[in-house]
Amino acid sequence: MPSLSTTSSAFTLLNPPQFSTTPKPLFFPSARPSSFPAQRHHLSMSTPARTPRAVSIEKEVLESERPDTFLRESDGGGNGAVSAGSVRARFEKMIREVQDRVCEAIQEVDGGGSFKEDVWSRPGGGGGISRVLQDGGVFEKAGVNVSVVYGVMPPEAYRAAKASAPDQKPGPVPFFAAGISSVLHPKNPFAPTLHFNYRYFETDAPKDTPGAPRQWWFGGGTDFTPSYIFEEDVKHFHSIQKAACDKFDPTFYPRFKKWCDDYFYIKHRGERRGLGGIFFDDLNDYDQEMLLSFATECANSVIPAYIPIIEKRRDTPFTEQHKAWQQLRRGRYVEFNLVYDRGTTFGLKTGGRIESILVSLPLTARWEYDHVPEEGSEEWKLLDACINPKEWLSE
Amino acid sequence: MPSLSTTSSAFTLLNPPQFSTTPKPLFFPSARPSSFPAQRHHLSMSTPARTPRAVSIEKEVLESERPDTFLRESDGGGNGAVSAGSVRARFEKMIREVQDRVCEAIQEVDGGGSFKEDVWSRPGGGGGISRVLQDGGVFEKAGVNVSVVYGVMPPEAYRAAKASAPDQKPGPVPFFAAGISSVLHPKNPFAPTLHFNYRYFETDAPKDTPGAPRQWWFGGGTDFTPSYIFEEDVKHFHSIQKAACDKFDPTFYPRFKKWCDDYFYIKHRGERRGLGGIFFDDLNDYDQEMLLSFATECANSVIPAYIPIIEKRRDTPFTEQHKAWQQLRRGRYVEFNLVYDRGTTFGLKTGGRIESILVSLPLTARWEYDHVPEEGSEEWKLLDACINPKEWLSE
Repeated sequence: MPSLSTTSSAFTLLNPPQFSTTPKPLFFPSARPSSFPAQRHHLSMSTPARTPRAVSIEKEVLESERPDTFLRESDGGGNGAVSAGSVRARFEKMIREVQDRVCEAIQEVDGGGSFKEDVWSRPGGGGGISRVLQDGGVFEKAGVNVSVVYGVMPPEAYRAAKASAPDQKPGPVPFFAAGISSVLHPKNPFAPTLHFNYRYFETDAPKDTPGAPRQWWFGGGTDFTPSYIFEEDVKHFHSIQKAACDKFDPTFYPRFKKWCDDYFYIKHRGERRGLGGIFFDDLNDYDQEMLLSFATECANSVIPAYIPIIEKRRDTPFTEQHKAWQQLRRGRYVEFNLVYDRGTTFGLKTGGRIESILVSLPLTARWEYDHVPEEGSEEWKLLDACINPKEWLSE
Repeated sequence: MPSLSTTSSAFTLLNPPQFSTTPKPLFFPSARPSSFPAQRHHLSMSTPARTPRAVSIEKEVLESERPDTFLRESDGGGNGAVSAGSVRARFEKMIREVQDRVCEAIQEVDGGGSFKEDVWSRPGGGGGISRVLQDGGVFEKAGVNVSVVYGVMPPEAYRAAKASAPDQKPGPVPFFAAGISSVLHPKNPFAPTLHFNYRYFETDAPKDTPGAPRQWWFGGGTDFTPSYIFEEDVKHFHSIQKAACDKFDPTFYPRFKKWCDDYFYIKHRGERRGLGGIFFDDLNDYDQEMLLSFATECANSVIPAYIPIIEKRRDTPFTEQHKAWQQLRRGRYVEFNLVYDRGTTFGLKTGGRIESILVSLPLTARWEYDHVPEEGSEEWKLLDACINPKEWLSE
């Protein structure tokens, strides 16, 4: 049984981990995505189109308008100004602002495409906003999603619960989770793919154990996946990650850089998915306000870390061979996400919103039998850096 | 711990399940595949090209020539005519003949491409022949592989071992496995993908329990995955499967047809990968000679079941939209193989020969966000048949 924090460690926080033991839907009704208009608060969604007679227990409801908050009223979601300053509320506000800003930046640099938006909610509270730009001017596929989830996890999934006396059977643990997650796949093979994800968890104190402590933790990271190495790009990207980390703790960057290299490891290939960045999980052994600021700083660093690279590389001329190599690396991306990524694999198994989970996959990918780049070639250099992670800032 | 039979239930029998507990290689040295010459018994392999500094414990050795048999001498692999009539020997002979004939038929219908061959062996006995045709005239990627494997499985993996007395600790169980597996992906979106796999297992009696029975079983199947339904093709394909089954037992086709629909299920989509065929596993409750004949009949049915469909559809004109739909269905193929297929997932986790395992993946695949075919369209009909399996021969 995966622990709660690991189940959402990837792209798919918007795919709410569903810890309850009720049967899971295999297929959700799908909506043709509406467009993402300039006047964003008045979306009109088209009628959901159903796929033929699939299993369909409706867990999520598609909404025609974005609510101001997905928080429950008891969390300050109504007019409850009392809790408006809570970490939950401030984290939601932060990720929604980051979603807006990143989408605007991507749309601007893309030049042609626009984001389509799906808004969904759950009857008991929580919901999310999925935005996808597909086949744009610069981006092949760009997904930026936020979600707010209320759920119940079985006690086995909650590591803190393990501290309870062995003869005392702990009950299910209610939890709250909010996060932003995004994968941006550009078309040009010299422009790197970016992934980022920042999330915040809280557990409620179980009603029957009023003395139990409430737990919270943060997780997230930003990593990038070029098909070709431009050292100035890699150094730029990593230096922005380091700067964000260094504002809070000088140990963060080296620790989270290594964590990232370790996490995005395609074991059967002996390769990392890309050239890393930062990754952390279960972070709660610092001041909560400090970590909220840290997550905010990291999320706000996405645009300066990424957009200048895209501006520089989006129009670089390329050959069919460059494109084929990018497509092979996209295949590796698919392998990592479907085989190893904990959020994706858990989401698939537990009936999350499939389209939101798999929006992380590239539009297109390629697998050639036994492709080995020529030693010393640019393709070989990238592969070498994926096999042997480098310290980009210390060289 | 998966049982032995399930670990090799898919494409990847040539990727020997490795049950020993020694460290597994993460990366095998790769060879640039040599061509598949007319004079097949004198292959010259080029020098293996290494990827940069990867983990490399060499388990398999690339061979420059195909041996007459991969059996150990004690199995009749040398000049041991004694065992030449054993089921092991006859099964190996059968699958190698089928490999030759299928490759010839594919190469002929392809018109342009030719198979590249990799031959490998293990120091302790066993080995395999991988053949791949890539980017041919008709086929995008076609892999036809045979393997013969000697291994040792932990007692937990061997279901028959469970019958032993609970206080008696069973030792590791030596086993033998041989099989053919193949995935054929044509280019034309109206020409279906085919997968087939036939395998035979035996366990040796452990030395310390001489009275223990030696176990054997058969597994396999043939299934196909069109992107568009031509009912005459589906009926032709299934009727050949049924005819092969009916020669042996009237219950086989309905049982193995359902088993196939159940096995190739993409749970997170609520869809089957394709339009089925037959699938069976752990088959040993019939006469061994009868099952050897049955597996032979099924393997021999691949060409008449598939080639006429390819001849009919390979040149059908198509649009970009047809191609995009095929690519989306290829994406589903990737999802099934990487997320659910027991042979693939086990092979990836235990360090099988990666290139052989993943040759089952299509050359190219596609993922669009929230793609829903228009109700009543040809794409919708295919999806409907993948969600609701049909009895093609009783309608």
